[in-house]
Amino acid sequence: MSPQNYRLIISCPDRVGLVAAVSSFLASEGGLLTEANYFRDPESNWFFMRQVIAADSLPYGPEELKQRFSPLAEQFNMEWQLTDTNVPKRVVLLASKQAHCLSDLLYRWRSDEMAFDIPCVISNHNDLRSYVDWHNIDYHHTPADADNKTEHFATVEKLIEDSNADVIVLARYMQILPPEICAKYSGKIINIHHSFLPAFVGAKPYHQAAERGVKLIGATCHYVTSDLDAGPIIEQDVVRISHHDSIPDLVRKGKDVEKTVLARGLRNHLEDRVLMHGNKTIVFE
Amino acid sequence: MSPQNYRLIISCPDRVGLVAAVSSFLASEGGLLTEANYFRDPESNWFFMRQVIAADSLPYGPEELKQRFSPLAEQFNMEWQLTDTNVPKRVVLLASKQAHCLSDLLYRWRSDEMAFDIPCVISNHNDLRSYVDWHNIDYHHTPADADNKTEHFATVEKLIEDSNADVIVLARYMQILPPEICAKYSGKIINIHHSFLPAFVGAKPYHQAAERGVKLIGATCHYVTSDLDAGPIIEQDVVRISHHDSIPDLVRKGKDVEKTVLARGLRNHLEDRVLMHGNKTIVFE
Amino acid sequence: MSPQNYRLIISCPDRVGLVAAVSSFLASEGGLLTEANYFRDPESNWFFMRQVIAADSLPYGPEELKQRFSPLAEQFNMEWQLTDTNVPKRVVLLASKQAHCLSDLLYRWRSDEMAFDIPCVISNHNDLRSYVDWHNIDYHHTPADADNKTEHFATVEKLIEDSNADVIVLARYMQILPPEICAKYSGKIINIHHSFLPAFVGAKPYHQAAERGVKLIGATCHYVTSDLDAGPIIEQDVVRISHHDSIPDLVRKGKDVEKTVLARGLRNHLEDRVLMHGNKTIVFE
Amino acid sequence: MSPQNYRLIISCPDRVGLVAAVSSFLASEGGLLTEANYFRDPESNWFFMRQVIAADSLPYGPEELKQRFSPLAEQFNMEWQLTDTNVPKRVVLLASKQAHCLSDLLYRWRSDEMAFDIPCVISNHNDLRSYVDWHNIDYHHTPADADNKTEHFATVEKLIEDSNADVIVLARYMQILPPEICAKYSGKIINIHHSFLPAFVGAKPYHQAAERGVKLIGATCHYVTSDLDAGPIIEQDVVRISHHDSIPDLVRKGKDVEKTVLARGLRNHLEDRVLMHGNKTIVFE
Repeated sequence: MSPQNYRLIISCPDRVGLVAAVSSFLASEGGLLTEANYFRDPESNWFFMRQVIAADSLPYGPEELKQRFSPLAEQFNMEWQLTDTNVPKRVVLLASKQAHCLSDLLYRWRSDEMAFDIPCVISNHNDLRSYVDWHNIDYHHTPADADNKTEHFATVEKLIEDSNADVIVLARYMQILPPEICAKYSGKIINIHHSFLPAFVGAKPYHQAAERGVKLIGATCHYVTSDLDAGPIIEQDVVRISHHDSIPDLVRKGKDVEKTVLARGLRNHLEDRVLMHGNKTIVFE
Repeated sequence: MSPQNYRLIISCPDRVGLVAAVSSFLASEGGLLTEANYFRDPESNWFFMRQVIAADSLPYGPEELKQRFSPLAEQFNMEWQLTDTNVPKRVVLLASKQAHCLSDLLYRWRSDEMAFDIPCVISNHNDLRSYVDWHNIDYHHTPADADNKTEHFATVEKLIEDSNADVIVLARYMQILPPEICAKYSGKIINIHHSFLPAFVGAKPYHQAAERGVKLIGATCHYVTSDLDAGPIIEQDVVRISHHDSIPDLVRKGKDVEKTVLARGLRNHLEDRVLMHGNKTIVFE
Repeated sequence: MSPQNYRLIISCPDRVGLVAAVSSFLASEGGLLTEANYFRDPESNWFFMRQVIAADSLPYGPEELKQRFSPLAEQFNMEWQLTDTNVPKRVVLLASKQAHCLSDLLYRWRSDEMAFDIPCVISNHNDLRSYVDWHNIDYHHTPADADNKTEHFATVEKLIEDSNADVIVLARYMQILPPEICAKYSGKIINIHHSFLPAFVGAKPYHQAAERGVKLIGATCHYVTSDLDAGPIIEQDVVRISHHDSIPDLVRKGKDVEKTVLARGLRNHLEDRVLMHGNKTIVFE
Repeated sequence: MSPQNYRLIISCPDRVGLVAAVSSFLASEGGLLTEANYFRDPESNWFFMRQVIAADSLPYGPEELKQRFSPLAEQFNMEWQLTDTNVPKRVVLLASKQAHCLSDLLYRWRSDEMAFDIPCVISNHNDLRSYVDWHNIDYHHTPADADNKTEHFATVEKLIEDSNADVIVLARYMQILPPEICAKYSGKIINIHHSFLPAFVGAKPYHQAAERGVKLIGATCHYVTSDLDAGPIIEQDVVRISHHDSIPDLVRKGKDVEKTVLARGLRNHLEDRVLMHGNKTIVFE
């Protein structure tokens, strides 16, 4: 098991002395930095920090650390959070019929490759139930047909609420979440789109790609906003295709990219490496 | 020096016996195949072939080969051409002020890495003249300001004509060719666009990319049609960027992708590996 | 379901008229080519072909096709085989404790992404039994400790024999097969090695990689010969690492490359795209 | 032109309060951090920092900054240096007959894509003289035949000394520098090796790669030590090859990787992003 750490994530207006103030505070408390990332956006003059502190270097727990840090945070107008690696994030997975992203995340979960809890899987179909069952994870089936969408989304929202989710992952969920849910969980809903955005927004991107004759196809992991496929991008990647590839080939090759990009994006989010800044992200890798 | 070859490029409706007919013809003439590529497009039932024949395996020259092949070509309704590797293609290069693509192609030319002739370089600026001069290649400067575009394009067209160009490469030329020139040299004008098309069509794609917050930027080599940035794609590639990259960084990283993608696309075109099929390409690599 | 095809795989000394002879034979039988790949190795003057024939274009079955093709094969001294896409290959999977490659292949199997049968999984540990059980696939546990290796390999050989395996995949099996088994199943045993061979042969390649300070790590899918990690390479790939990556990070990142490379290599093998030529492979992609 | 910055590069044993001490010092002087990178090596408990300070945020010049920082550096047993972006590094280029790496670096130099001075080019051949001449850069030809190697290296050493070189780049120089020169310029000599090290050490790596049948070839940029091809690696990359690629194809494709990898490695070195740690490097990108 990895040693316990606290992660202190900060964004605020830049000022001379900012790094000094934060690192001096941490040093005065005895905190040992095991990782530290800084970024200054010259356009907005905004500053972003991620500091990882060895828990056993401090004589007290995370709540007291928060309390002691608070005055400094206020002084510098920081948006900030402190997370504890001993408290894994709770990730609700939404899926439809396709198994590739869900299977991949379940593998990473059960092999302890990525640290998170899964309160439940929600799907508008029953196809993946048996596989999820084997993992001893709750599976909720709530249909999403044309005539019961409102009910579907109400159920989804209730299930998310009840599970105390920190993160909601749309693992090829194929439904468009209503704006209220997007707003309520802003910065917490992660989607995988099966194209290299902003190319091929919307439905059937592989068909669009085949039509256009591109030589690479891709996938995009992004935060969900009410603006379809337009939220802040966390991670992207591509794979080479050729004239030999039919649409089923694109779908197949694309699946490998989708699951890889989603897993990388989610990992970075779970490790508090992704900071939102307007419609963009800072990703401290 | 590479041994002399003929390349027989064919596209036509598919039929049982097509490969047999062509290869039997070549075998009966004594032709040794050193490379052979075939592709059947199942949607259109169209067939594409590229065959490379060792010149010294035939007792006669390319003109007679063409004549002898003609009846077969007619019988199968082929679009076809035969090229001779001893006759390098004539490539006119159009550029503006930026040197990266032009320099890269001139390096590949002078080091014999790619086999082609350069009748001349045409530019709307004088910046690159001295460098082109060093290569003993003709440099034509014809300004392209708002008030003399018509004259500019007339000059360009005349220079292309006079140089007996087989290929026209827009090596970051930055001007939009009039539709008449696009039509006249259909399938012969190759452009490099500084984005992963169809994302970021038009002007300032790196600014668009920065604005959208993508995690990869790219470049696209395509045939020019009168429809801006929408012609058949020959080659594409991407490079990873991060929040650290300012727009000048994108421009710098992008230049490396642009020149690589253009060189690969042009090489494939020069080796008759690219066959157009509607708005798509078959690239026999 | 994909339409039924026959794949005719040939390697033989090159001669003028070879493609003509084969394609004329196929045409005379009415065979429609849906794919055709040819490669001539100029050094050895050896020729390699892969032709895919639509089954419904022939008035008879694969056995008669073989019989009819035989005389031509003899005339040209061909090594050849004809496979039928309706007869999936039987793939025995050998694993140890690590799940990533096995899980990945089982996903591709159960989602019909790759067409093959799995007669059984063999392991020297019991860790993966429950997961394999869920798939309704036989799981054989045969320990491989220092004092019972001979027995272990005898059991493995018997199980392979009894299962009529066409392919044996070492999905991170971690044992070195005895030379007799390697010889008996020459060209049929596929291994995934967790380095970019020939770098870091043998044990603990990720430790070796960390020690050397490389900036990329990789994986290699190859046929097994009695010469450790030296068999013909089918597929390789790499992933970027940095000074931030500890050995556990290398292991984790490496797993993703290992499973991808193994899946690509196996897919090409299953589709009869891989032809051995001495210690190298021709891979018709 | 980029704004003037100072870069403060530090490595030392780790201690709680290290970042605080350095950043507090810089803040107390008024220094604005525009970039900051930190890395703690958990195995050796060593700490590495790179801080970029806006020159105009300080009321004095780099010499005074060094003087004021000195006591802190001593207190923490730091190895450190301060560089000034207004003082470009002096890079001596050594080449042989091949032009690809040299041409690429000269392009990046003349287009201001990378900031450095070139006091001279040294070669054991005259082939590249005219091209270097066009750039108005001194070209020294000193033959390196079997019977005058000692003289050759004496001349090379003298030329390097006379040119006050900060960096020596072996741009496909093809000669093995004597250990004395390697030791004298430790951490300052950068080589590009045409393989993915540690695979294919020594001569003719592309022939070795073809012999082994690998599916990727690569290039490695590393610091030169007296141990051939074994110095700390700065950057590596690979490119995909196939059975179609002959050795000349490998050489051609390899050239593109070589020049890209060398340029990236050199850029990182010039920007003081590369810190040596034993036989490894930390590269702050």
